[in-house]
This record gives sequence, structure tokens and C-alpha cells, in this order.
Amino acid sequence: MNCFNVRTDLALEARESIEETAGEVRGITVEEDYREKSEVRITKVVIETKNGAKAMQKPMGTYITLEAPGMQEPDEGYHREIAEEIAHILKQLIPEAEKEKPILVVGLGNREVTADALGPGVVDNLFITRHVVREYGKAAYSREQMNLISGIVPGVMAQTGMEAAEIIKGVVEETNPEVVVVIDALAARSTRRLNRTVQITNTGIQPGSGVGNHRNALTKESLGVPVIAIGVPTVVDAATIVNDALEKVRRENADAGVEKFPSLPGGALNELNNMYVTCKDIDETVKRLSFMLSEALNMAFEIA
Amino acid sequence: MNCFNVRTDLALEARESIEETAGEVRGITVEEDYREKSEVRITKVVIETKNGAKAMQKPMGTYITLEAPGMQEPDEGYHREIAEEIAHILKQLIPEAEKEKPILVVGLGNREVTADALGPGVVDNLFITRHVVREYGKAAYSREQMNLISGIVPGVMAQTGMEAAEIIKGVVEETNPEVVVVIDALAARSTRRLNRTVQITNTGIQPGSGVGNHRNALTKESLGVPVIAIGVPTVVDAATIVNDALEKVRRENADAGVEKFPSLPGGALNELNNMYVTCKDIDETVKRLSFMLSEALNMAFEIA
Amino acid sequence: MNCFNVRTDLALEARESIEETAGEVRGITVEEDYREKSEVRITKVVIETKNGAKAMQKPMGTYITLEAPGMQEPDEGYHREIAEEIAHILKQLIPEAEKEKPILVVGLGNREVTADALGPGVVDNLFITRHVVREYGKAAYSREQMNLISGIVPGVMAQTGMEAAEIIKGVVEETNPEVVVVIDALAARSTRRLNRTVQITNTGIQPGSGVGNHRNALTKESLGVPVIAIGVPTVVDAATIVNDALEKVRRENADAGVEKFPSLPGGALNELNNMYVTCKDIDETVKRLSFMLSEALNMAFEIA
Amino acid sequence: MNCFNVRTDLALEARESIEETAGEVRGITVEEDYREKSEVRITKVVIETKNGAKAMQKPMGTYITLEAPGMQEPDEGYHREIAEEIAHILKQLIPEAEKEKPILVVGLGNREVTADALGPGVVDNLFITRHVVREYGKAAYSREQMNLISGIVPGVMAQTGMEAAEIIKGVVEETNPEVVVVIDALAARSTRRLNRTVQITNTGIQPGSGVGNHRNALTKESLGVPVIAIGVPTVVDAATIVNDALEKVRRENADAGVEKFPSLPGGALNELNNMYVTCKDIDETVKRLSFMLSEALNMAFEIA
Repeated sequence: MNCFNVRTDLALEARESIEETAGEVRGITVEEDYREKSEVRITKVVIETKNGAKAMQKPMGTYITLEAPGMQEPDEGYHREIAEEIAHILKQLIPEAEKEKPILVVGLGNREVTADALGPGVVDNLFITRHVVREYGKAAYSREQMNLISGIVPGVMAQTGMEAAEIIKGVVEETNPEVVVVIDALAARSTRRLNRTVQITNTGIQPGSGVGNHRNALTKESLGVPVIAIGVPTVVDAATIVNDALEKVRRENADAGVEKFPSLPGGALNELNNMYVTCKDIDETVKRLSFMLSEALNMAFEIA
Repeated sequence: MNCFNVRTDLALEARESIEETAGEVRGITVEEDYREKSEVRITKVVIETKNGAKAMQKPMGTYITLEAPGMQEPDEGYHREIAEEIAHILKQLIPEAEKEKPILVVGLGNREVTADALGPGVVDNLFITRHVVREYGKAAYSREQMNLISGIVPGVMAQTGMEAAEIIKGVVEETNPEVVVVIDALAARSTRRLNRTVQITNTGIQPGSGVGNHRNALTKESLGVPVIAIGVPTVVDAATIVNDALEKVRRENADAGVEKFPSLPGGALNELNNMYVTCKDIDETVKRLSFMLSEALNMAFEIA
Repeated sequence: MNCFNVRTDLALEARESIEETAGEVRGITVEEDYREKSEVRITKVVIETKNGAKAMQKPMGTYITLEAPGMQEPDEGYHREIAEEIAHILKQLIPEAEKEKPILVVGLGNREVTADALGPGVVDNLFITRHVVREYGKAAYSREQMNLISGIVPGVMAQTGMEAAEIIKGVVEETNPEVVVVIDALAARSTRRLNRTVQITNTGIQPGSGVGNHRNALTKESLGVPVIAIGVPTVVDAATIVNDALEKVRRENADAGVEKFPSLPGGALNELNNMYVTCKDIDETVKRLSFMLSEALNMAFEIA
Repeated sequence: MNCFNVRTDLALEARESIEETAGEVRGITVEEDYREKSEVRITKVVIETKNGAKAMQKPMGTYITLEAPGMQEPDEGYHREIAEEIAHILKQLIPEAEKEKPILVVGLGNREVTADALGPGVVDNLFITRHVVREYGKAAYSREQMNLISGIVPGVMAQTGMEAAEIIKGVVEETNPEVVVVIDALAARSTRRLNRTVQITNTGIQPGSGVGNHRNALTKESLGVPVIAIGVPTVVDAATIVNDALEKVRRENADAGVEKFPSLPGGALNELNNMYVTCKDIDETVKRLSFMLSEALNMAFEIA
């Protein structure tokens, strides 16, 4: 079994997989930080070289992960302290976000599938200002500076017959944002990461990522403007969960001196294709996380 | 009071208003037909000249209206016989619709406002084929011919910060449909027309039309391809209803020999701005009409 | 024309109608208060006698109205200051609400009709605790006192085949709350009151009230426990709007010395039956008001 | 490992588990039938004795299962032929369903979680007649006989603070249906059964069944009237999938002569508690299955 084949959208998990098998890899730097107040662990993985990108199976760029175990529990609000950390990171990744700037926020995913509805939920809660500033000027908000925020939920291919990337590309060409921020529900490798991890990257969205497996890229190359992607893992691929459990048994077999360990026959997990694992209370979780992320964006764009 | 100021999206009503005040107008032809079997009255208004367009306050082109009193009542299905009439008309307006042809269906309006959710509802029920035909060929459907149907619900400006027209323009440029079909909930002048009238026109969508008052056009000029618009009136402007009631009283006053008839002071109806009148069972009505229209489109595109 | 026939669910408006025609009425006391900080006008109407009830066409009891012009505008939150005033009033009407007490919150209305979706929206946002306290005790919330809050959205008769009152009665008998709080969207007489007025009464819900015209009562008599009703007018009956406009013209006619003023023939407004007037941005308004009311309830029940 | 611990709501799968380990069991009869036309396999399992019930871990009664591989694929309609088979079975289980009879249909599950939204979807599409027949008599439908159909979606405990069973009990006592039909999304043991199997039983709903793990029973004992339960498996418990994969490996180990096979340490799968596996296109599947079941009910109740 090849661990690299186990699917994960998280750079953090990809790095762990590599370390397990190959040890440290050149071209990848890692910084960790723990914020006492918000109880958030922040890990910054930078893939600096093509070798690093190949090892990680992710493009070169910066991947910042926030881990907050409390995130998946209801609090009396929406985890404002975590939203503030996210806003802080976003401001670093979006250059000069305080200036008047047109920003398009894209909510990827399928509104009709609970675990995939994170992106649409964020756009639903977002403070949209582009049309007002264009018609009345920033004075409408009694502010000295006001970004022009627009938002779109492109839907999924089964609903539209189009790749989300086709729709976004057209909208970007027509409305000329300077930055695109994409929100998506992700697949993790481990259930322990579900709903308590936020990944923010300046590399955009890669083909094959997300709960819905987007086939086309949303990147600076494809859209012509910087693309920040924000994701939260809400599912694990069903085959991944089974593979990981088998791998545990295999190791214990090895430790116990069992030599012959029969693998599952090829294709034994085929029936798990297109299936994923998610939590029973995913509806409340996605509702809460959507609200937290939309507040983080509102703060980062300084409109709330 | 100027009847022409009373807002209606229906060419049929615009013509009636003109006839009431000005009699027959040159440059406008009208044909009527009654289908016994489906109990549908079909009126074809063609605006042939610029003068006609000016009088009607609508652009030159063909406007076909189906009136079916039964349409607003639940039937045991979805009024298949009316759907068939609509499909028949669409086939005439979409040249060679039987050939393999990329068609984009746009569901205008606000999914969150019941009376304005007709367009989104139609796209939700539509048989979407573009992605399948592009990936597997028409053979995927065991058909000799198969149109490539895509669909989009652009949302409204308060949700996206963008004009629906901006989004559609971008999507059309990126995905190259040969025809665009736009569905929208309309405003009628008379409550008698609500939910029992379908207007089909080859002139697209004009600025200021629809329940949500779209400000930008969706026309052949703006999109570069033919635009068929299908609309059902689901609301009446609140000011229109009051004006019409006052007009009735005024006429009776005149008949009764009352000379001085004080008008409402200017601005008396201002508080009715941005208000509309709709039916209490609008949820069931819009659900049923959406399904009827989506079936009509499926038939017209020969995919059901 | 009999002004009393004009439909309103607001005691405030009923009293105004009476004063216009009959002057002050015995058995009705009125207190007004203006809160500078929150910019809220609070009017307390108490109907103390059967005569007062007859004149007002509303049952004896206390009706407290909050008028806040700002309420219908988006604020950067959800009008917390108004929510606090509502919570304060609720605490007075719910005796000893601070004690551990089972309270059932009912969200009346039709979730599928935007203007009628206020009640369902409030229950969706409410902090529900009954099941947790029953299973783990109030210790689950680290509180000394914790009310047991349950919530239900009974739907409307077209969806369920049952009166909301039948469903609520059964649920009350089975789960034994000590108080029932009912939330409903109301019909006002004047568009000026829409979405900026909250009525709180200890008389429950009367037959024929609400956007959906509930036919059965939800009162202490019918349910056996005190019923607090909270309503916000989101619609005006279409016939009411026309009647009021005609009445204005009629008065000006009278002032201008016109003697014969022809009424509309009986039944002229029949086509407006079952139609109502609402605002174009009713989706955002109802979303915001639902959230404000659910926060007010959370505060009143001391669980947030 | 004890196969009996593997959770399944399907009597069919419970019987298979038993046969694997214990062979045929007394007190359980099985009849199979294959319908060529509709390509549906129908299996009728009757648990006739307490011993049988104990072995099956299901109460005594009749369990009819329809297996239709085509069911999970879109067809050009909604699989009318399968709906007809279901209607046929329902008519046998509901005695004299052709007579005028009050029937309450309950849509269990969580509307906000796609895989659990089957029950709510069925009630949404159902033809509700109780209120009309009660007000206007069966003449309203120009029928000689007309059942009085009511429907309710009780929601889940996290939303209401109440067990679905408490709500249903109250509603049954208040509205007196003669039969209750409960629809629920189920958990299967095998992914191969997902979305292509319908189980119909006259034993009602047992504690711990369903996607949402209902804790209270909905049975003739608890409600006082016969309860027919209709379920479609839409999920598999995550731990079950891993257990089954491990079991396969274990058997191959045994076949290969490996003696020591280390189990997973106790609690190794704890992190999979409250997690389930479902399909990526669960939104379209549940939409289609809901419609199929509501049509089956409409046919069984002879109202469509």
C-alpha cells in the first residue's frame, strides 16, 4: 500500500505522510506557533521547490493551517477568537487588503449536500458591498476605505452542466476583481482533523480537490489574479478510512511477527468509490463554521 | 393619470392599455388562437416597427402569450397539456432546436423570495446534459441527437454584488451557448393574470423588468446570441393595484356626473414603492409552475 | 365603509381606528414610553373590560408594542439593543422565567413563503436545551439555573392537513411545558408599520390572525397553560391597502364639497381576497428579524 | 468479532448475518419473488416467534424488502414501476385502505442532513387531503371514496428538544388517525444495498434505528394504532464498513494459514462513532427516492 495515494486536501497531512515514510524533505519549510489565548495551533508549511511540490503532491506556495479542537463544539457565539486569527492571516496573504479593492468570494460546493455546503454558506452570510459602493460610493458606509466585495455560488457540474471554473473564469473576466477568495469543504485523511482545522493557501484550488472533486483549477494561472483558498475538512474518503484501519492491523501483524499478511484483492474497495464519511451532526457544524468563516472574511475586508 | 405608467411586463396588457386610450396602433399585429383540448388561449403580438415599440414601451419582436385559467389550480400532475403547448412554441422560436446545440438556461430571480423563485425552480428541475455529452458523447443517452443543456441561477444583486447580466455575460463568453433561454417571474398589471399566463418572447429581458427589477438587459445585443425569455406574472406592483382601483372610482364618478374628482396628492403612494401584491398560496403555485416550465423545456430540447 | 372591518393584527392600530371614529373608549388603558438609548417607542395597551374587548375586536389582556424605525434597516449586527428591550418585556410577562422551567416555543407560519417564515426562522436559531437538561441535568451548561427550552414548527394546513392548533395541543399535552411562546408574522393595516414593530401579548393567538390566517386559537383556554404571542407585521392585506387609499380620496372629496361619491360596487375587491402586499427585500428582513427575536428569547430565557 | 453487533436496520441483512454463522433459524420464514417487468426482487421475511425475534434482534412481524438495482439510477421519470410494486405491498399491509380512512404519514429524519432527509422529502411531495375532506367532504375530489391524509415532519431532537416519538404521540392522540405510516432513512450493513432497497414492515420503528438513531419507539404499542414503517438505507455506519473490511482480511488470513491475527485494540474505532458513510450524489438520490415513495403512497391511498 502506498500512503501517498491516500487522499488528503490538507498540506499538513501530506507532510505527515511524507515524514512517516521518507523523513524530512528538502524544499519544504515548516513553522509552528501556538496562540494561548485562542487555543489555536498555527502551522505554516511553505513548499519552496519543485521537488518539494512533487513530494507533497501539491503546488509550490504557502499553506497555513489553524487547528482548534474547540472549533467543532458549539460555543455561545461563533468562535470569534478563531475568526480573528483567520482574519489576521488573510490580511497577510491579501496584499494591502485595507485599500479599496474589488474582491470576489467564491463559495464552491453543493448547497444540497450538507457536508459540501460550507462554501455556499459562507457567501450567504457575507457582507456584500460591491453594488452599493459602485452606485453610491464608499460614503454609503461612512467609511474612509471600503473594499468592493462580490460573491458567487457557482454550484456543481451535475446542477449546471458547467465546471465551476468555467463560471468563475467568465465572472472574473467580466467583473475584474483584483483578488479571488475561494471557500471549499475539503477531504481530510484522518477523522481527527474533521471540522476543527482551517487551511488557508495562496495556491488556489487544484484539480481533484474538495468534497466534490473539482476537476479544473482555480489558480492565478487560470484566472489571472491571485487566488486565496480557504478550506475546512468535513469528510474523509471512505476508502481512506478502511485503508488506514488495515494499515494499523498490518503494522501490528508485523510487530507480532506475522509474516504473510494477505492484502485485500485489487478492487476490493471499489464499492467505496464516490463514498465519503462524515459526522451525524454535520448540519450544525457546517452552519457554525460557515458563520465563523464569513465573519473572518468580514473582518479581513474591514467591513464589520 | 397616465395608464402607460402603470407597470406591466406583459405585452398583452401593454396592448390593452394602448387600445383603451388610443385604439389600434400601426406596427403591431395581433393573432389569437384557442386550443380546445388544452383550454389554452394563445395570443401572438408582433411589434414590427419602432413606432409600435414606442407605443408599447417594449422592444420590437414577437411576444406569445398563453392564457390558461386552469394553470393556477393544482391538477393531478403538472398540466402536461400546457407544457406541451409551451414546448411547441419554443421549438418555433429556437431555430432547429432538434439539432445538437448548446443551450444555456438562466433562472433569474431570488431563490429566497417565494414569488421571485420561479426561475431558480425551473433550473433546479431541468435535465442538464452538457457535461455528460461533452465527456461521453450523445451516446450516453442512447440518442441520435442530443442538445447540450447547461443551467445557471445567477442570484440577485443584494446577494452577489453583481448584476445578473454581468454574470451571464461572463458565462456566455466562457461556455459559448448558441441560444440563451431566460426564465423570470414577472409583474402583471392585473391580479386576474397572475399565475395563469405564460409570456414567451424572442426579445430577451429588458432593463427594469421582472419581480426584482433587473437593471441590465439580457438581449441578443448584450449577449451576442439569441435570447428567448419565458415569464409568468406572479406579482402586481402595489401602487398599480391602488391606481387601478382609483381609476375605477374615477370613471364611475364621471358617469355619475361628479365633476371635481380630487386626485391623491403627489407622492401619496410613495410608501408603496418597492412593495408588491402576491397570493397567499404562492409557494405551491411557484413550485407547480416551475415544474411545468422545466418539463416544457425538457420537451422542447427533446430530452425527456 | 366601516374602518373596523379593515384587518389588523396590531392592537395599536385597532386602537387608532377606534379613536379616529369613536374617541377614547372605556376599558382600555394606554401607556407610552420612549427609550432614548435604543430609540424604541413602547406602547402598552391593556384591554380591561369586555366592552373594551368588543370595541377593539381583540380579547382582554396586555398588548405591548415596540416601534423602532431602525429595525427594518440592516445594522452591523442584529439590533441587539432592541432584542434587549424585548427580552426585558418577556421577563415581565413570563412569571419567574429565571427559574428552571419548561417552555415550548412555537414558530407559526409557512417556511416556504418568505413573508410568513418569521416563526420558523426564530425556532431555527433558538438555543434548544430541554433534551440536554433532561439527559444530563443543568450541570451540562455549568449553570445554576437552566430553563428547558423546546421548539416546534408545526407547518401550515396545506402542508399537514392539520390545524397548527391541533399539533400544538397534542405536543403540549405530551410534553407538559409550563408556558408556550408563539411567534408569528402578522398583518398590519399600514405599510408604515411593516417590519419595524413588535407586538408582545399575553393573550395568545386568536383565530383569523397571522399572515396565514390561523383558524384555531392558541390561548390559555385552549392549551391549559399561559400563552405569550410575539408578532411582527410583515404584510398588509391587499384589500386593506386599496380601501385605505379610497378612504383618503373620499375624505378629500368631502373636504372639496363633492357630495356624491360613488363607492366601488360590492365585490369589486373580491379578486384581492387571499392576496397580500409585502416588501421586495422581505427575504433579508425576515432573516434579520428572526435572528433578533431568537436572540431576545435566548436572553429572556437566560441561556445566552 | 460478533457479526450481530454490526448495525443494520434491514431484516434482510440481519437474516444473512444469522445464516452465515448459525444456519437456518426456527421461527423465521422467508419467501422470495422476482418481478420480471419491474426487475424488482421482493423478499418477505416473517418473524413468527420470540426466538426468531431474539435471533434477528428485531421484533416479530412482517418485513418486505424490494431490491431494485435500477432504483439508484436516474430514469426519465421516478421509477413508476417500482412505485407501483410498493403501493401494491402497502395496500396489503394497510387493511381496507380503499375505504375512507384517516392516515397520518410521518417523515422522520433531519431535513438539514441530506442522507437523512428522505422522510421529510416524502411528506413534502405527498397529496394531503384531510383538511379538505373535513371541510368540504370527499365531494371536493369528485371521488366516491377518499382517505383523509395528514402529514408531519417532527424534526430531530437537536432541533426541537423533544423526541420525535413525543411529538407523534401527541399528534396521534389529538387527531386520531387509524393508521400511521412512518418514512425513514435507514442504515444498511453493506454499501451494495444503499439507495436500491426499500423495506416495508408492520412493526413500526424501533429504538436505535434510522440514520439519526431514534431513541424511542413508534409502534402499535406506543401509539395505539397500527404503524407501517417504510425505509430506504442511505448510509452505512463508518465502523461497520471498517469492521467488514477487516473481517474479509481475517478470513483470507485464515485461508492462508496465518494463525495469529491481531485484532485492533479495543476502542480503536471509537473515533468513528457518530460517523457514517454515504454517496457523493446523495442529494439527487434522496430527491428521486422521496418522489418515488410519495407517488407510491399517493397510489396506495388512491388519491393520484
